[in-house]
Amino acid sequence: MSQNEKNVGFQGEKGSYSEEVTNNCIPNSNPVPYKTLEDLFSALKNNEIVNAIIPIENSIEGSVNEAYDLLLESDAKINGEINLRIKHCLIGHKGVNINEVESIYSHPQALGQCRKYIKKLNKKVIPTYDTAGSVKLIKEKGIKNGVAIASRKAAEQYDMEVIDDKIGDNEDNYTRFFYLGEKNPTKTGKDKTSIVFSTSDRAGSLYKALEEFANRNINLTKIQSRPTREKAWDYNFFVDFEGHIEDNDCKELYDSLAEMCKFVKVLGSYPRA
Amino acid sequence: MSQNEKNVGFQGEKGSYSEEVTNNCIPNSNPVPYKTLEDLFSALKNNEIVNAIIPIENSIEGSVNEAYDLLLESDAKINGEINLRIKHCLIGHKGVNINEVESIYSHPQALGQCRKYIKKLNKKVIPTYDTAGSVKLIKEKGIKNGVAIASRKAAEQYDMEVIDDKIGDNEDNYTRFFYLGEKNPTKTGKDKTSIVFSTSDRAGSLYKALEEFANRNINLTKIQSRPTREKAWDYNFFVDFEGHIEDNDCKELYDSLAEMCKFVKVLGSYPRA
Repeated sequence: MSQNEKNVGFQGEKGSYSEEVTNNCIPNSNPVPYKTLEDLFSALKNNEIVNAIIPIENSIEGSVNEAYDLLLESDAKINGEINLRIKHCLIGHKGVNINEVESIYSHPQALGQCRKYIKKLNKKVIPTYDTAGSVKLIKEKGIKNGVAIASRKAAEQYDMEVIDDKIGDNEDNYTRFFYLGEKNPTKTGKDKTSIVFSTSDRAGSLYKALEEFANRNINLTKIQSRPTREKAWDYNFFVDFEGHIEDNDCKELYDSLAEMCKFVKVLGSYPRA
Repeated sequence: MSQNEKNVGFQGEKGSYSEEVTNNCIPNSNPVPYKTLEDLFSALKNNEIVNAIIPIENSIEGSVNEAYDLLLESDAKINGEINLRIKHCLIGHKGVNINEVESIYSHPQALGQCRKYIKKLNKKVIPTYDTAGSVKLIKEKGIKNGVAIASRKAAEQYDMEVIDDKIGDNEDNYTRFFYLGEKNPTKTGKDKTSIVFSTSDRAGSLYKALEEFANRNINLTKIQSRPTREKAWDYNFFVDFEGHIEDNDCKELYDSLAEMCKFVKVLGSYPRA
């Protein structure tokens, strides 16, 4: 690692989409792999790494629930968002015959993004912790009748063969990543903010909260409900909207939500992708 | 199967929580296991089964995304909802020593509901298609250094040992199931309705849709966004609310949504759990 490089953590193995984001989008970064998202968040907290890259949602398969839950508990701030075009490949040992393949290995998110293709293949499906990690697994364990779903880069990383590409349910496939750090970045004028709040149990309380956005013409770009994990059928709402938390209308919005909600937390303001 | 019994499909193996729901809550049912939710929906469509039981959300780990996506595509109607108390156990071969265990097998939902416990154990985690199926797997394959997370019933079903119980992150753990059939059940006066709609891209369009509920004092009990799987960053909103679609105010609500939304579909009206 050169003197100017900083440690940026990601979840997965070398050749994963998260590593690709780290290499392409974070200048002077030294990518550090972690097995789980939980390990990655711990590393950030313990200052083993300066920043972390986390996948937050995929345009086909939806939100990465664990990432949302960990963001809620963490003190880290979202410093940026990055959209990566996802091009999944079916990857196996060199010279593999698809008719002899018995199992398909990949991360549940990738499996979910290729449901139609997998259904046609009609093989056993084995969920794993990582796309590239699946290629590594079938390579290192010599699983000749197994194939993995991962990127072309992952095939190259482990010197394996791309059997098929364009295997996604929809080629319009993107994963949105968050870039986490200790501090909030400064305002650029083209920003987004992510917050999480929990409303009271009263009827129409979510509507009342959204009214605060609508009254200020603040554009919601995403809303995601998640269980609070404390009380059954109690939800937190993760909301992304256009604007920086230091904008006057966003400050007002925050104050109103803080008054009406059981709790509200700003996860970060960052330049729009 | 006796003459009066009807085939009710569920996803998973014998001893799964879904089978428990089928046995306990659907009178005169002959439970039929299916490996995947997709197979289960196909079986219902092809009249192999009269009804299907699907898990829709867990109070700790949240929505079962694939179930939502399959409901969207299906013509089946929700006939009822059932909340099952979930009590996970750690299950292994008889006489197993926890210190010699290397891997924990279970469905990703169950793994997510026991995150804290799993972190403490510090073993390798292997996601599978089913909780009871994991017990069956380590039993039948003779995986002596593997344990599974599943119900006490699953341990009994496969004659395995409960090593530990109360292993969930929160003992207040329920899974909500839908009971699917061909037709809509009749009004009881204490009903719920599930719909899905997609709003226009205009700012505030979700707020405008929720206004239609608020104006009629219709109580939203759940909102879940899911990608449309057609266009990137385009969402469908799955909403549950109190009332039957044949109630006057609910009929009016439906008409308003149909006018303002890109699409709206009723998934069913059914007696509240």
